[in-house]
Amino acid sequence: MDLVLIAILLGLLAVVYGFVTSRQVLGAGAGNERMQEIASAIQEGAQAYLKRQYTTIALVGVVVAVLVFVFLGTVPTIGFVIGAILSGLAGFIGMNISVRANVRTAAAAQSGLQQGLTLAFRAGAITGMLVAGLALLAIAVFFWYLTGPGGHAPNSREVIDGLIGLAFGASLISIFARLGGGIFTKAADVGADLVGKVEAGIPEDDPRNPAVIADNVGDNVGDCAGMAADLFETYVVTVGATMVLTALLFGDALGDLLMPMMALPLLIGGACIVTSIIGTYFVKLGKGSTNVMGAMYKGFIITAVLAVPLIWLVMDQALGGMTTEIGGAPAGIDPGAPLAEEGMAEQVRTFTGWDLFWSSVVGLAITGLIIWITEYYTGTNFRPVKSIAKASETGHGTNVIQGLAISLESTALPTLVIVAGIIASFQLAGLMGIAYAATAMLALAGMVVALDAYGPVTDNAGGIAEMAGLDDSVREKTDLLDAVGNTTKAVTKGYAIGSAGLGALVLFAAYTTDLAEFFPDADVDFSLENPYVIVGLLLGALLPYLFGAMGMTAVGRAAGDVVKDVRDQFAGDPGIMAGTSKPDYARTVDLVTKAAIKEMIVPSLLPVLAPIVVYYAIYFLAGQENAFAAVGALLLGVIIGGIFVALSMTAGGGAWDNAKKYIEDGHHGGKGSEAHKAAVTGDTVGDPYKDTAGPAVNPMIKITNIVALLLLAALAAG
Amino acid sequence: MDLVLIAILLGLLAVVYGFVTSRQVLGAGAGNERMQEIASAIQEGAQAYLKRQYTTIALVGVVVAVLVFVFLGTVPTIGFVIGAILSGLAGFIGMNISVRANVRTAAAAQSGLQQGLTLAFRAGAITGMLVAGLALLAIAVFFWYLTGPGGHAPNSREVIDGLIGLAFGASLISIFARLGGGIFTKAADVGADLVGKVEAGIPEDDPRNPAVIADNVGDNVGDCAGMAADLFETYVVTVGATMVLTALLFGDALGDLLMPMMALPLLIGGACIVTSIIGTYFVKLGKGSTNVMGAMYKGFIITAVLAVPLIWLVMDQALGGMTTEIGGAPAGIDPGAPLAEEGMAEQVRTFTGWDLFWSSVVGLAITGLIIWITEYYTGTNFRPVKSIAKASETGHGTNVIQGLAISLESTALPTLVIVAGIIASFQLAGLMGIAYAATAMLALAGMVVALDAYGPVTDNAGGIAEMAGLDDSVREKTDLLDAVGNTTKAVTKGYAIGSAGLGALVLFAAYTTDLAEFFPDADVDFSLENPYVIVGLLLGALLPYLFGAMGMTAVGRAAGDVVKDVRDQFAGDPGIMAGTSKPDYARTVDLVTKAAIKEMIVPSLLPVLAPIVVYYAIYFLAGQENAFAAVGALLLGVIIGGIFVALSMTAGGGAWDNAKKYIEDGHHGGKGSEAHKAAVTGDTVGDPYKDTAGPAVNPMIKITNIVALLLLAALAAG
Repeated sequence: MDLVLIAILLGLLAVVYGFVTSRQVLGAGAGNERMQEIASAIQEGAQAYLKRQYTTIALVGVVVAVLVFVFLGTVPTIGFVIGAILSGLAGFIGMNISVRANVRTAAAAQSGLQQGLTLAFRAGAITGMLVAGLALLAIAVFFWYLTGPGGHAPNSREVIDGLIGLAFGASLISIFARLGGGIFTKAADVGADLVGKVEAGIPEDDPRNPAVIADNVGDNVGDCAGMAADLFETYVVTVGATMVLTALLFGDALGDLLMPMMALPLLIGGACIVTSIIGTYFVKLGKGSTNVMGAMYKGFIITAVLAVPLIWLVMDQALGGMTTEIGGAPAGIDPGAPLAEEGMAEQVRTFTGWDLFWSSVVGLAITGLIIWITEYYTGTNFRPVKSIAKASETGHGTNVIQGLAISLESTALPTLVIVAGIIASFQLAGLMGIAYAATAMLALAGMVVALDAYGPVTDNAGGIAEMAGLDDSVREKTDLLDAVGNTTKAVTKGYAIGSAGLGALVLFAAYTTDLAEFFPDADVDFSLENPYVIVGLLLGALLPYLFGAMGMTAVGRAAGDVVKDVRDQFAGDPGIMAGTSKPDYARTVDLVTKAAIKEMIVPSLLPVLAPIVVYYAIYFLAGQENAFAAVGALLLGVIIGGIFVALSMTAGGGAWDNAKKYIEDGHHGGKGSEAHKAAVTGDTVGDPYKDTAGPAVNPMIKITNIVALLLLAALAAG
Repeated sequence: MDLVLIAILLGLLAVVYGFVTSRQVLGAGAGNERMQEIASAIQEGAQAYLKRQYTTIALVGVVVAVLVFVFLGTVPTIGFVIGAILSGLAGFIGMNISVRANVRTAAAAQSGLQQGLTLAFRAGAITGMLVAGLALLAIAVFFWYLTGPGGHAPNSREVIDGLIGLAFGASLISIFARLGGGIFTKAADVGADLVGKVEAGIPEDDPRNPAVIADNVGDNVGDCAGMAADLFETYVVTVGATMVLTALLFGDALGDLLMPMMALPLLIGGACIVTSIIGTYFVKLGKGSTNVMGAMYKGFIITAVLAVPLIWLVMDQALGGMTTEIGGAPAGIDPGAPLAEEGMAEQVRTFTGWDLFWSSVVGLAITGLIIWITEYYTGTNFRPVKSIAKASETGHGTNVIQGLAISLESTALPTLVIVAGIIASFQLAGLMGIAYAATAMLALAGMVVALDAYGPVTDNAGGIAEMAGLDDSVREKTDLLDAVGNTTKAVTKGYAIGSAGLGALVLFAAYTTDLAEFFPDADVDFSLENPYVIVGLLLGALLPYLFGAMGMTAVGRAAGDVVKDVRDQFAGDPGIMAGTSKPDYARTVDLVTKAAIKEMIVPSLLPVLAPIVVYYAIYFLAGQENAFAAVGALLLGVIIGGIFVALSMTAGGGAWDNAKKYIEDGHHGGKGSEAHKAAVTGDTVGDPYKDTAGPAVNPMIKITNIVALLLLAALAAG
């Protein structure tokens, strides 16, 4: 049977799982009237957000689609549109499930911890499976159509450019969703706190605060819709880049193995969808246990361990045995081209199925290690979080100092793991080894996203339980469920940026091989001895800093808008504070949406424009060959700078958040103590770190890389 | 006359200036008995610090000197010892002047603002001129001896290795001085605040607090001794690297121009000593003006503007006309060696004196721009500081968020300036152009260090005025003087790291040319397409993060030791709080010194060991050629990561500090307001950022580079 069709079927399996499970989730009891009223306010807000956000993105998308069409032609445009629509769809469905599962989780927690966990995790699993399934379907169906009915060779320019277009569509949406969502959620959070807790003196999660619903919507907007679009994009880019690299590096030299090798990344994705679905059924508490994180681990470990034999199986079948020699003489690249002269021989060396298999296992191991390290840095049981909690005793300043120290430190182990992964997989199978390690990492996306998307559901469930005045025992259960949320959210971000570190080499290789194909006469010197390479590396490393600064500032400004709006509502209708009239939640949500969308435009343009501006600036000053070198170095500079900014921000933010929770659990004086006040400051600082600036670095890196590839294609065409 | 002897004479001129001026400073009135009592406590503390710090450094120095001797021979060992001793001496003398000038500045401020400014600035100028003068003398005398009485050719291996040894000695001392001083000053500062203000409820700068003298000693230890050693090192490494590169890249091909070209960097340094001395006499307030920063600028601008014709003059004389063609066929490198194949041709192309002249002007321009940008980001008149002050209104969290946003943002303009400088100077004269831009930057060190070393003098003067109960009008004047201190301190740090950015390419070129000379058969691939290059870049970029984390944590731990010691002193002698007995200042100082020295060991080892560990790890896994590539990439990775960490920390910390000062000037509610409390938190966070972790990154970068050069020499010898 056609290998690509098998991948499509497995992608459909994920979608079917999503639909079946969503019927289960939506069929669960939705609680009492008060709970439903609150939940419907959140849903109403979510609708308002989605409407405006998608309207704006659609406008930008149409303009970009026209530009893609003009410069690159039909196939990349179709790819772009598919990527953009499905990326948006993954976020849309995930968020819609999430805002309905929250109230049902609160209701289920009334029966017991296991019931609450099952409901919340299933809701997360729906988003997870849809992200992985839709991403796999997007690539597989598009590839199947182009190579089947479309009649293009698997390594033809049409297929390659189509896949790059697809990745571009997914990335463009994801940077908007990630950054817009990140600004939204933290502007609403900080704004609601400032005007509610500080000014009006009403408690957190008080329904009289018009911004409180925006705050709850924000959890879904950022950690569900934004994250889903981000991981969809990471999946499409990584798996797509592996296929593109296969076509560019080997092409016809693979002979009969060309089609199986192009389909293999899709099959690995499909295999892991199966194991992820199995894994979801193992997320269960032991008898009488309250170890929620342990239940999560069980599900993940089952998924990853089962993936090993299944990846072996699909490889063995696709390649006709694990000892088949793959690769050989470079094809698709003129061996006489200057670029291909050095290094290339190493990259296109032959390897066997076993080499690719072990490279994939390296990818699975990296994922496991990053999860483990992230838990160490953000979990309440370990030194880092405890050290921040202890530092809170001596005040706000020492809390923030220790938090920053931990955030800097937390980059070390993941970097070493990524470096070890690069070396191991490269030694196994050259550049393709690295590509397979990255693909195997992303193949687990279904399970990883499930763990993350579970977070906002339980977070909202706790808020609803509080606002609806449910019994304290319910809130205790949702708190237990929510406690691991900070860690699982940090895990996904570390995982996404870690895969970006591995994928950077793959994308850079796509850039250099594309360059060799489009400009065979260009003698581009990518050596560190070329000053234009250093210039590119410096400018690339600057991007995440500037981007982070813009994101942090945007949160502050948008939060100010929220404060003003809430003051207006209070002044215009005294009944709101008296509890006799309902505040206009939708108005605040719409305002935050508008502010978030306005604020996300400039930072989002940064990675889109940077490669183009750097190319033309260096072209003008030092000629085309140096311009190509500088842009190439820019691509690696952005990952080398970005990986540290993103890792430090996401782990640091999670650690600050949990240090506050640790104190609230009764340590260092507990709630209301001076240490707690200091920990609240740290938590506030960590918010835009971990939810706005940090996670948006991942799509930023990808978009810079993809724009550079499109630039090459446009320059070659023009 | 021998060109090198002229440089030696100009170096001596700086030393003479230092002695003459120090007689003037020490001859000024030292105030009343109470003031002298306080000042002598600070001096006593400074002695205690110097004794222990230098004892430890001497022990480490002897061990390292023996290692250098065993692996590299006599000449590098002599160089190492000279570099180490003079680096320590520059800090020693500077600090000794500083702790005597503080009380005299307080006394002079009684007569008027101009009198206080003159005294404080002259004290700073002594340190500045000694740093520049001793650094110039160290290189020039050593070079003169080796090429004269020693009988070695200017481009012989002995001279090259001697200069590298000299740089290593200076760097090793400077990382200890910078990091140890940084930990000392902030541990004392934070510790004194915690136990004095928070626990005992006594005001800041209260003489009953045993840690308060340590706090004042700390200003001198960090910003005077540490900074002087750091800039001494930067000077020696930059000017030395320019000479080493001249010898390695051109060598005998320069013919009669070899000696003049080797001496030229020294002459540029000497010329700028003359203009710096002239500049110091222009640091004067206009009639009735209180614009202290303006007076500083006058001095700097005179120095930089006069440097232009003087640099032209020494070049014209040394090269025998500005249109002389320099360079040509590579020498000293086997043109058949693989490394020399590409890129090298561009680097060794011919150029004229005019090209070197304009490259030097580029260096002067970079210095001016960095000062201007730093003032924008840390001065109280501009958006960044004002935005942090405004964000303080809504609390601790928003203050820190905005401060972090500014700290991230502040990296952008300096990076663009450095990038523009690299491109401009490279286009003028290839790699030598970049080397001359960096040399011209450092030639201004005398003036820049003067601006910086002025800071702790006025800071202490204010403290002494406060503690001695002088008239409020005196404190007002010292406050006016001190206000610009935060900016000038940030300026020096930005300047040092900026020159490191430019110098990175020079040091990397020294690494690659050394590699080509020592291992002519090694086919090392420095291309970004080589995964081991990416591994090196990632590991290099990790170093400043890990180093920063260690520095921040060390401050927290050492501050805890201070708290314990002060509690013990209070408990042991109730007379201290009653004011009837004197606390044991020296004991606290000694304790902080011990803690600082203990804490600085591990982070200091990081850059020393990193190149060696990376070399052997990659050698074992992937062979020697990849190991060389990874170590080379590590050198650039550490600068690409480090420049952003250092710039963001130093500018961000300065901005936080001045935002607090801006509020204390009566904005946003002034002293005691909620905004002020939030600003104090930001200031505390900024302290270890700007005074411990950030500035130590510069010597860390250099040491990594120099250890890599020594590693090559040791491998070649072994």
